[in-house]
Amino acid sequence: MKEKPLILVTNDDGITAPGLRKLIHILNRMGDVFVVAPDSPQSGMGHAITVNNTLFVEPVNIDDGPQIEYTCSGTPADCVKLAVNELLNKKPDLCVSGINHGSNSSINVIYSGTMSAAVEAGIEGIPAIGFSLLDYSWNADFSHLEKTVESVVRNVLEKGLPEGVVLNVNIPKNTGKPLRGVRICRQANAFWKEEFDKRVNPHGREYYWLTGKFVNMDKGEDTDEWALANYYVSVVPVQYDMTAHHFIKNLNEWKF
Amino acid sequence: MKEKPLILVTNDDGITAPGLRKLIHILNRMGDVFVVAPDSPQSGMGHAITVNNTLFVEPVNIDDGPQIEYTCSGTPADCVKLAVNELLNKKPDLCVSGINHGSNSSINVIYSGTMSAAVEAGIEGIPAIGFSLLDYSWNADFSHLEKTVESVVRNVLEKGLPEGVVLNVNIPKNTGKPLRGVRICRQANAFWKEEFDKRVNPHGREYYWLTGKFVNMDKGEDTDEWALANYYVSVVPVQYDMTAHHFIKNLNEWKF
Repeated sequence: MKEKPLILVTNDDGITAPGLRKLIHILNRMGDVFVVAPDSPQSGMGHAITVNNTLFVEPVNIDDGPQIEYTCSGTPADCVKLAVNELLNKKPDLCVSGINHGSNSSINVIYSGTMSAAVEAGIEGIPAIGFSLLDYSWNADFSHLEKTVESVVRNVLEKGLPEGVVLNVNIPKNTGKPLRGVRICRQANAFWKEEFDKRVNPHGREYYWLTGKFVNMDKGEDTDEWALANYYVSVVPVQYDMTAHHFIKNLNEWKF
Repeated sequence: MKEKPLILVTNDDGITAPGLRKLIHILNRMGDVFVVAPDSPQSGMGHAITVNNTLFVEPVNIDDGPQIEYTCSGTPADCVKLAVNELLNKKPDLCVSGINHGSNSSINVIYSGTMSAAVEAGIEGIPAIGFSLLDYSWNADFSHLEKTVESVVRNVLEKGLPEGVVLNVNIPKNTGKPLRGVRICRQANAFWKEEFDKRVNPHGREYYWLTGKFVNMDKGEDTDEWALANYYVSVVPVQYDMTAHHFIKNLNEWKF
């Protein structure tokens, strides 16, 4: 009989987040689950790593499942690095990050701690998936997505992923109707129009909260935004060679 | 006579870093310089943004130049967002980030606060360049790079950059010899092999420092690592559509 796959699990909402607990619950049926997750919320951390501070790691026991769990004072990318290089004595077969409370579609992939963990695993040569639900609330309803998560995970465990590619999976908020299926997409060309909320603290000092409006200029039906707006699950293959290969030829004509 | 260009300047080593001061000094000759830089070092911050905390911004006066300067409690990406959406009343003609104390070549681009500021400016539709010197020390020698910085900046001011592309410029450490020139490169396929330095604090609790060795498996002479090893300045055009377009067709054959 084949050995059960070793699945490394992390997230950016922190070890107690319901989205992570749900993910662990699903993955316990599919493999040996090893969790290393931040001890506090790390949303918007992008691909931050902790180079100028210490990292604390502690074993924890949050619920009754068979999973092994650690919590870490660092970022999601730190969690993956620590798991792979220090806590585990064999390379995981898969890394799954999430389920994030909130969207990581389109340009959000670049700000996302959830996806940075998946990308970090990819860099370490581990097939990886980030899952996100389009519902920011802590009490989000995760009841409609079990089959989707299982299906994507099973596919990756069976087929693997090419070097340098991880998956960014976003799932519409539950409307009570069954999801319309899975669409393979490209990242929509969208951005955040920032709006800073300026306030004055009790000591008379001004400060800001970063807020913003999401602006999608990309009407393509092959985008993640289109899929999600039409109640499909979006799967975007993500790569992290940032080179703009198409512009190298032009740049070579510049005189420096 | 044409108006002087408005140049937004930031970095990730903090407002007092010699690399930033040098950059301001060079750019003061080329345009109206507006600085918004972190009030503390932000190395390794990747594309982090501050969504769960307040942001403080203060005008400062560090030296005698004509530049206008602010310092911010946030990340490099926050600095750009604040400058563009709150502090400036017109869109900058260019954003320049750096000069970083340390390399941002190859995979470092993904962990780099310096480059996240440039990418954030790119997202906001502003031509942007990140400069990094291959010398991590605070007292690094920046005397050999003035011409290179000027030349790259002048080119971008004259020719612009296509939508969705920013430049990642890395400069070899000064050996006393003149730099051999500029090479347009792709990002080398390399990674960090982590080594965690495990210690025990005075209270008996274990903690880690993240360290690592840089491993370059990519011998291509068109890579930034090759250029830098051969004492050339590397210029990598960087894009932030993370979609792995080449894998979409394969994924479409999967059954979910």
